[in-house]
Amino acid sequence: MARIPDSHPRKKSLLSRERIVNGSSKGLLADSAMIAHGRGEAFDYLLGERTTDSARLAICESAVRLRNSKNPVISVNGNTVLLAGKGALRLGAVIGCPIEVNLYYRTTERVSGLLSLLEEQRSEVLEEAPPVGFNGDWFESVRGVSLLGDSPNFRIEGLEGPRSHCTEEGIGVADCILVPLEDGDRCEALVNLGKEVIVIDLNPLSRSAKKATVTIVDEVSRAFDGILHELVCDSEYSRNSWDNEAVLRSSLEEISEFLKSI
Amino acid sequence: MARIPDSHPRKKSLLSRERIVNGSSKGLLADSAMIAHGRGEAFDYLLGERTTDSARLAICESAVRLRNSKNPVISVNGNTVLLAGKGALRLGAVIGCPIEVNLYYRTTERVSGLLSLLEEQRSEVLEEAPPVGFNGDWFESVRGVSLLGDSPNFRIEGLEGPRSHCTEEGIGVADCILVPLEDGDRCEALVNLGKEVIVIDLNPLSRSAKKATVTIVDEVSRAFDGILHELVCDSEYSRNSWDNEAVLRSSLEEISEFLKSI
Repeated sequence: MARIPDSHPRKKSLLSRERIVNGSSKGLLADSAMIAHGRGEAFDYLLGERTTDSARLAICESAVRLRNSKNPVISVNGNTVLLAGKGALRLGAVIGCPIEVNLYYRTTERVSGLLSLLEEQRSEVLEEAPPVGFNGDWFESVRGVSLLGDSPNFRIEGLEGPRSHCTEEGIGVADCILVPLEDGDRCEALVNLGKEVIVIDLNPLSRSAKKATVTIVDEVSRAFDGILHELVCDSEYSRNSWDNEAVLRSSLEEISEFLKSI
Repeated sequence: MARIPDSHPRKKSLLSRERIVNGSSKGLLADSAMIAHGRGEAFDYLLGERTTDSARLAICESAVRLRNSKNPVISVNGNTVLLAGKGALRLGAVIGCPIEVNLYYRTTERVSGLLSLLEEQRSEVLEEAPPVGFNGDWFESVRGVSLLGDSPNFRIEGLEGPRSHCTEEGIGVADCILVPLEDGDRCEALVNLGKEVIVIDLNPLSRSAKKATVTIVDEVSRAFDGILHELVCDSEYSRNSWDNEAVLRSSLEEISEFLKSI
């Protein structure tokens, strides 16, 4: 693809598209992953390509839940690793939790390809400065993030076939799962197991968005950055009972407002 | 992919997705065509996966313009042929105009692959009953649709490189171009040449949607069917001056209304 000038107003979106196209040509994505990315692009456009107020609330709620859980895990698929693998690693380092590559259309090649890419991304994150406000040992924390998924030894109850496979030490024992871009069936199965499921999904109307414990309607890398910021800073967020449906309704209103503002 | 049950409320959308995935695996699509399809899916979802009132108006206007033009042409890309190639052929037969395969990321292989697919689709259309209201010889009309694009011998002024190539007998001499899913730059160049450009695009905010003479904000196969219906039936559409911006604003309002209705 041609180089995108820095001045292009939608540079970030076009770079993300380029990452997805390149990842697909390397065989890291399932057939329909590019279509899913396109849907996300459209919804992000309609949200004004920014973290909306309702997404900010969901990000704060998610940070509290991840901090308070006993066994959190970040479950990633191909699109997430390509778009925000480094963000997942930074988050894993700050939370102190594993990352599990878990694919709906699982193949051994894609899982190992994505784990290799995460290892490459880890070496880049190791070179970075720790996030402002982080007090631990950055090098050790980043190195300590377990990358799981190549040897599934557990099953998600209520699902059939390869899409049910996971690792015991990751999704198996987790009480809280941060899972961007998840499939609706799997989201529902995880919730039915009594786990807290935090979904990141740009489509407030998707089944995963509706089934999740907390839904962050935001682009995955912005959402990861937002959660990280909440975890390392003194946030003023005061938690009440969580009404996920209300937050989804707010996202739809935010799209309507954006359309009126054009 | 698994067979989609007839009862599935979004069966048509899922079948379209399957066509795009299969076409891509056969090498008929450019890298980012699946992403473009995903964007379309999202916008169609937000329009309620139906032809809205404003799209209906644009369809009527387009039918009149196609009927009244001297040298109309239908310009198609990979996604259009996969999603609605038969619809394009039916329309070409009724209007009596050529279809030109014209690709933004042109390769000889893709153009000839798409022309072959159109020939296959033509043999299916030949077997079909003519549209109700059509009085000509269906067999001759369908057989008479010229399929152009494999030997570009003309250039669209104002564009550089392979994306400027076209045929003289198609886009070159055309005074009215029906072009679904067009790129913004090309749409603008065609309008600047004084041609009437009828764009079909699910995104009312896209550059092509904004630049076109008439924009039909609708899914391509529904739009083709709608234009065909207008052409063969006695329509009650009474034509006034055309305000394309007003129609685009109506589409955005229709999305807002749909979101409120959920």
